[in-house]
Amino acid sequence: MTGAPSSSPLTPGSTIGILGGGQLGRMLAQAAAQLGLHTHIYCPNKQAPAFEVANAQTIADFDDDDALREFAQNCDAVTFEFENIPLHAADLVADITPFYPGRKALDISQDRGTEKSFLQELGIQVADWWSVENASDLATAMDECGAKAVLKTRRLGYDGKGQVTLDPQSDPTNALGQLENQPAILERMIPFEREVSVVLVRSLQGDVSCYDIPCNHHEGGILRRSTIPCNISPELTQSAKEAATKIATALDYIGVLAVEFFVTNDGNSQQLLVNEFAPRVHNTGHWTLDACLCSQFENHIRATAGWPLGPTQRHSNAVMTNLLGPDVMEWQTLASQPDLALHLYGKTGTQKGRKLGHKTQISRKTD
Amino acid sequence: MTGAPSSSPLTPGSTIGILGGGQLGRMLAQAAAQLGLHTHIYCPNKQAPAFEVANAQTIADFDDDDALREFAQNCDAVTFEFENIPLHAADLVADITPFYPGRKALDISQDRGTEKSFLQELGIQVADWWSVENASDLATAMDECGAKAVLKTRRLGYDGKGQVTLDPQSDPTNALGQLENQPAILERMIPFEREVSVVLVRSLQGDVSCYDIPCNHHEGGILRRSTIPCNISPELTQSAKEAATKIATALDYIGVLAVEFFVTNDGNSQQLLVNEFAPRVHNTGHWTLDACLCSQFENHIRATAGWPLGPTQRHSNAVMTNLLGPDVMEWQTLASQPDLALHLYGKTGTQKGRKLGHKTQISRKTD
Repeated sequence: MTGAPSSSPLTPGSTIGILGGGQLGRMLAQAAAQLGLHTHIYCPNKQAPAFEVANAQTIADFDDDDALREFAQNCDAVTFEFENIPLHAADLVADITPFYPGRKALDISQDRGTEKSFLQELGIQVADWWSVENASDLATAMDECGAKAVLKTRRLGYDGKGQVTLDPQSDPTNALGQLENQPAILERMIPFEREVSVVLVRSLQGDVSCYDIPCNHHEGGILRRSTIPCNISPELTQSAKEAATKIATALDYIGVLAVEFFVTNDGNSQQLLVNEFAPRVHNTGHWTLDACLCSQFENHIRATAGWPLGPTQRHSNAVMTNLLGPDVMEWQTLASQPDLALHLYGKTGTQKGRKLGHKTQISRKTD
Repeated sequence: MTGAPSSSPLTPGSTIGILGGGQLGRMLAQAAAQLGLHTHIYCPNKQAPAFEVANAQTIADFDDDDALREFAQNCDAVTFEFENIPLHAADLVADITPFYPGRKALDISQDRGTEKSFLQELGIQVADWWSVENASDLATAMDECGAKAVLKTRRLGYDGKGQVTLDPQSDPTNALGQLENQPAILERMIPFEREVSVVLVRSLQGDVSCYDIPCNHHEGGILRRSTIPCNISPELTQSAKEAATKIATALDYIGVLAVEFFVTNDGNSQQLLVNEFAPRVHNTGHWTLDACLCSQFENHIRATAGWPLGPTQRHSNAVMTNLLGPDVMEWQTLASQPDLALHLYGKTGTQKGRKLGHKTQISRKTD
């Protein structure tokens, strides 16, 4: 068996392996089942919500080489649901079976500094940033920036974790201490008008198709709401889709890719800055489950299986809102709303900020 | 533990048991998972397609009382995906846990004669019919009918099985022999203009909501295609929905009910005759997965769990076509069609007439 990409699509009845068993893995497994494809979930967490909707489960750590090898041998292709899969695990799997979206995307997206350099090499605009190894680096960077900025760990940050907001007057040593002195970057804080994202899918054959662009609203670093359509200009829409497509192509990417943008306004016109990209299905694409015939999850599975891409057009307007922590206690009220789709992830516990479900309100398409 | 219906809804994390593990059970389990509800599938067939998307499985026959009892004890409510569940099994389960849509619907729908009498007692129009126990009964019935007719076994017929079409000249003994001399009914053949169906859902609280009415096209006794909207008059639409609602109410029904109608035309106006009803999610409601925010499967799960009903409005027009037997070999071509959703049931074998999947083409809503 070889890890080289196959040019023929996986037939129904084949097995797609998914590294990670959270809600994204769960929704991927559900999409695969609709197409008659089996899934095998690999996750260290015994309570992983994806386990219960998949055919096969492996409960093991990402440094368990034997478990990874056996998993890979049982899968006709493997993908992942989060970008912090150790590269060692990815390499081990990729030696045995086709591995998508691909090692390069995983490698680059795991380090904020590498990611920003990669984007800049492609000629894509990002916020000013500085690499920070120690307090002296940070003092210099803060000085050069001369304005509000965000200090972010290079690795393992998500949902606002591993970030500190700094004034020019903040104490560099203290700031780095808050991030446990991990390697970091300083990023100029962008006074953005709005945040938008492009969720696209790229096939094994290199075809790219973009979903409509949502406007995203975050609270405390966590996505709260995505609204579609986002009503940015056709030119800006075009630019955002082109930038995202350029990233996907440069990564030789297979599957769903999400690229987050800041939209700024200098008083004369709007500009786009890429914030970051995620090499996976994305929270800002959850609305596609209810407002498109083929969701981001189905399209990611199609790409992973070497199938033709499904349509990305939407049939309805949508507002997707995350249900965080205690929000899910309202499930009974939510279930009685007309025009609302309710998605609960089967997780236990209602800790603040924990993503436990989402709701999508749809309405007649207006464009 | 009691089998009496509870007035409070099942909380997310509860378990719904499903008797039967075919594609209907599979799609019910997938709908339950979206709502954070667990499913336990009970099916004698080891290869049941529903097993792989459910939390728990029991492989046992419907006359295995111990297995049924243990299954019921592990479920917070139980429903079924086909109407030929033995009543003994239903009673055993219903003694332990709430059982929906209910025993009465199951009992009546298992016998075509009982079903027709029930409908007539409600004042609902059906085709002329005669009860047939032997060749002498049949000869009398054929004589009274005096036209083309269909001889159907009272029990266990589906997808055109257990049926013989008769001329007034046919030999009664031979006809009954073809049905292995089982108790039967003779039904006047209806020169219908079209076939339509009402798929409705009724909640534990007695609320009823009807999906839009599809026009259904059968080939060889098997549903081939459902088209929505069906373009019957508002008056006929209203009458069909009223008749279906009357049936559901008379059965004290909880869940999705499908009622099939013949639309006839005497040259002056259209009339409705009920063909039969099915106490379960129905093939003529599969289009709701792709053209409605809340599918028949989700609404059946909601009703079974005592939840508020979801919206039944459609957002798009739809044409649902079954993929029978070798049709699924075309999956690669089908997967590349725009505006088409593909659903494959994960079954093996491609025998002629076997329901292996369906496709739904959607288009902009026209009404």
